[in-house]
Amino acid sequence: MGPDPAVAAVRSAVRESLGGRPSGGLVLVACSGGADSLALAGALAFTAVRAGLRAGGVTVDHGLQEGSAARADEVVKVLRSLGLDPVESVAVSVGRAGGPEAAAREARYTALNEAAERLGAGAVLLGHTLDDQAETVLLGLARGSGARSLAGMAPCAGRYLRPFLGLTRAEVRRACLAMGLAPWDDPHNEDTAYTRVRVRKKVLPLLEEELGPGVSEALARTAAQLREDADALDAWAARALEEARDFDHALDVRTLEGLPRAVRSRVLRRVAVAAGSPAGTLASVHVAAVDRLVTAWHGQRGVDLPGGIRVIRRYGKLHFGTAEVAGSGETRRKA
Amino acid sequence: MGPDPAVAAVRSAVRESLGGRPSGGLVLVACSGGADSLALAGALAFTAVRAGLRAGGVTVDHGLQEGSAARADEVVKVLRSLGLDPVESVAVSVGRAGGPEAAAREARYTALNEAAERLGAGAVLLGHTLDDQAETVLLGLARGSGARSLAGMAPCAGRYLRPFLGLTRAEVRRACLAMGLAPWDDPHNEDTAYTRVRVRKKVLPLLEEELGPGVSEALARTAAQLREDADALDAWAARALEEARDFDHALDVRTLEGLPRAVRSRVLRRVAVAAGSPAGTLASVHVAAVDRLVTAWHGQRGVDLPGGIRVIRRYGKLHFGTAEVAGSGETRRKA
Repeated sequence: MGPDPAVAAVRSAVRESLGGRPSGGLVLVACSGGADSLALAGALAFTAVRAGLRAGGVTVDHGLQEGSAARADEVVKVLRSLGLDPVESVAVSVGRAGGPEAAAREARYTALNEAAERLGAGAVLLGHTLDDQAETVLLGLARGSGARSLAGMAPCAGRYLRPFLGLTRAEVRRACLAMGLAPWDDPHNEDTAYTRVRVRKKVLPLLEEELGPGVSEALARTAAQLREDADALDAWAARALEEARDFDHALDVRTLEGLPRAVRSRVLRRVAVAAGSPAGTLASVHVAAVDRLVTAWHGQRGVDLPGGIRVIRRYGKLHFGTAEVAGSGETRRKA
Repeated sequence: MGPDPAVAAVRSAVRESLGGRPSGGLVLVACSGGADSLALAGALAFTAVRAGLRAGGVTVDHGLQEGSAARADEVVKVLRSLGLDPVESVAVSVGRAGGPEAAAREARYTALNEAAERLGAGAVLLGHTLDDQAETVLLGLARGSGARSLAGMAPCAGRYLRPFLGLTRAEVRRACLAMGLAPWDDPHNEDTAYTRVRVRKKVLPLLEEELGPGVSEALARTAAQLREDADALDAWAARALEEARDFDHALDVRTLEGLPRAVRSRVLRRVAVAAGSPAGTLASVHVAAVDRLVTAWHGQRGVDLPGGIRVIRRYGKLHFGTAEVAGSGETRRKA
């Protein structure tokens, strides 16, 4: 008799995600003690041995709830009981920048990065499921910030792997219980002060009710397709940037004109960010204004971008620089 | 004193949408008598004269509601009173294929196409608003069918123009009333048997409530960006297809391998549809199976697609054909 189908599914997902790694390498699981990451730890423990890999675990104590340190200790015990080694608990202090969810995420990834470096781990597994992905897509959609944000979380990004993006939360929880692991249910996951929790508890259920079942799957499928689209367009933009960029780092307007708008706006965004405009505050309206220097040129003075970056067009080229330098250039031309 | 701001906005939207048309040409408005298309008719009547264009109107009587013929006559009267000429009412019979909404749409566009041909109109204006666009994006999202369906309705597609995609329904209605036009409120727009009505009445209000205001604007913005992305990727796929296609219409596997997956899957989809697989039933799982003939080749027998199309790989090339022809090819190779 084989294992429970849910257990087989989580193991197979981890095996596929780890495929092709050199044997003897260390893989860490990031485990909160919740059902998703506990199932991930169980699946990793089973799979790593058979794949000739070493498996360890890290749990991050955010220090945001009473008894979090004790719970982190318990998670360490469970991970050790699964045979993972090394296992660490890392305490972090969560700041306030960007709101509570963003600050906790920031602290968590910093700690995971440090642990991975310190322990020499080639990969860190994260327990995000198809349902998490659907929530992420909806949150990105409400921001209206284009394909990249709708593309959700990457199955593979740098050292981070998310083997469970194709599995539902219910299936992963079933696997966790079938492996005899007792999940901890984070009360934060029920706290509707968090937008993500409201998406999970209210928005997605209503979408399922009104649009028919399978909405989460559809959102996750959409994310995967948009990720491929975004990758392809980014590759095109990188190539186009090489072609358009002159020896003095200015961009040739003629070359830019020949690009589809989707590619040109990616090129312009890249160059603006490289010039010092902060990626987080550089909005599509800014990029659109720069685009008009190319496509709707009527002698505009220049475009000011966040971060004190100014873009001017001169002799058929776009120059990105600090406002001061670009400003003096403009003056020189006028003189 | 200038016109009401909402009136100014609808006129400016129509003017921008009609920009660059040769003078003397005929532009039609498709008008149901609802607030959106009535405001569109009013704005067109005002704008066309000043742009040197002739403006006419068509109302389609779907024959689905009691008194629809009489109402179509009233719409004709209103359009004539605005100075539009010619104005026609076209009765259609709505079939059942694809459900009531799709069948009505099909009948409507057939009638509008015929009217445009018969009257020699260069453009037909449609009254879809930003809110309609947001609904379309959500409906596409729930199907999970990739960037093209999330891109919503095109501001310009063949002879059809949608000047109001950047304006909210509330703003357009305000313009309609400010122009002294009395809109007809279609009871179908309140009938929650229609998925689109449920999206409008339940889903979008909940999204606004839970995710914050501006969700419809964000969805419309997303649609515009994804439309540009899809256009760029389609252009790339068209070019790549030319490069990959051999004199015998087979595709060179080596060339396909070098493409990003997003582009390759578009190439494969195009060729499959051109070979006779119906675009409506050819799903992304089918395309993914063909993709594996390129990226995960282990001597597969071939892939069967809807419409009796079979794809086989032979001597480094993909051949798309009817199942019979491809099958005999496979046999020959084995012999």
